[in-house]
Amino acid sequence: MPAEAAPSYLWVPGLGEAVDFVELSPEESHYLARVCRAREGDRAVATDGRGALATLRVLSLGSRVRAAIETLERPPSAAPRRRAWILCGAPEDQRGDWLVEKLAELGVEVWQPIECARARWRFSSGTLARWQRLAVAALRQSRRRYIVEVRPPAPLAEVASGLPAGAACWMADPDGQRGAPPSEGMGWTVGAIGPSKGFDPGEKDLLEGRAFKPICLSDGRLRTETTALAWAAWWGRGSG
Amino acid sequence: MPAEAAPSYLWVPGLGEAVDFVELSPEESHYLARVCRAREGDRAVATDGRGALATLRVLSLGSRVRAAIETLERPPSAAPRRRAWILCGAPEDQRGDWLVEKLAELGVEVWQPIECARARWRFSSGTLARWQRLAVAALRQSRRRYIVEVRPPAPLAEVASGLPAGAACWMADPDGQRGAPPSEGMGWTVGAIGPSKGFDPGEKDLLEGRAFKPICLSDGRLRTETTALAWAAWWGRGSG
Repeated sequence: MPAEAAPSYLWVPGLGEAVDFVELSPEESHYLARVCRAREGDRAVATDGRGALATLRVLSLGSRVRAAIETLERPPSAAPRRRAWILCGAPEDQRGDWLVEKLAELGVEVWQPIECARARWRFSSGTLARWQRLAVAALRQSRRRYIVEVRPPAPLAEVASGLPAGAACWMADPDGQRGAPPSEGMGWTVGAIGPSKGFDPGEKDLLEGRAFKPICLSDGRLRTETTALAWAAWWGRGSG
Repeated sequence: MPAEAAPSYLWVPGLGEAVDFVELSPEESHYLARVCRAREGDRAVATDGRGALATLRVLSLGSRVRAAIETLERPPSAAPRRRAWILCGAPEDQRGDWLVEKLAELGVEVWQPIECARARWRFSSGTLARWQRLAVAALRQSRRRYIVEVRPPAPLAEVASGLPAGAACWMADPDGQRGAPPSEGMGWTVGAIGPSKGFDPGEKDLLEGRAFKPICLSDGRLRTETTALAWAAWWGRGSG
């Protein structure tokens, strides 16, 4: 379906708890009225980014658009699904912005930048807000029901000890296994991508100790951000 | 191997025909001397981007570096290999630059932008030169033996009639087959990616008439450039 034929797709946190109508945030109101040029009476589709999906009808425009909820489908509580979690070292030239956008399009659910021995993220107070905006834009674009959770950078050892139990864990490695299929099963798959200069031996030991399996994603040497993307594309192919 | 431990990797067209030494282009000379900070006597690795691979030793620096060829391995003539060819409609916001870079890293050999009914490329005389520079940078980065051939945009019908015989052809399509494995065999695989608003029905018919099989690369709706990347990552996983 070409983009122009699809109804506008909105991110409305709190939608899952709403009853008859919603009031959109200033950002979503602007997007719907200015970018999508919606009018009163138009229909739109909305998600809370946590699995709920609704059909809305615009009641009134303005800085806070009001819309009636025509249909609302909440996800079955704790329904299992395939989920991806990325740990990623700093790429060169801080190419994090478009990486967040692309990973969100590909359906990754947790974006966790990691501080490594060989590279640290340049991260300021504005970075997280910018990533969050990119995540919303990618959610709208890809029309997904789950939004990526963007997290601030944290040390590898810290995040490695906080991963979900039972996750299938992979570490991108040019010497790793080729052609391994991603898990088709439900639950978390975690991908760890080193910074531009790679993981150091201690970091590799740490990941191997936590059962991260080495996987090779290309026959060439990929940049950090390309590796993360190739991993997410590999994971995404297993679904559906 | 961390990047700092690998010898510099250069693009030297004509290398395959060289005998004892080579004189580098001003661009590669600058890259080797200024970016890699090589000195006389240092070793470097070079490819012609057409399969030849050499070990060089720097004889003299300057605006045209001279280097001795220590070893030179030419590819067996017409040795078969897995090769990827991408036809790609215009993405939004002209995101072609990083797309060329990423496809080159992933090992795509032909980058063919296509003019479609719903979108045309903004293309100026500088675009091809810029793409060529990005292709060289990606060749160095990924340490490949084959450089991507960057082509100017051309109409879909024209390029579709000039594809290599026997190629396996795929068209990205949200309604296409999921989980199809890429061909492991040698030879060309062609991927056709629609512009941001998609192929129009006539274009789809044209591609189907040429045996392009629809393939779905994600359970979400991907942007054009993300689709091209996901396709190249999918293809690249089949190799090696």
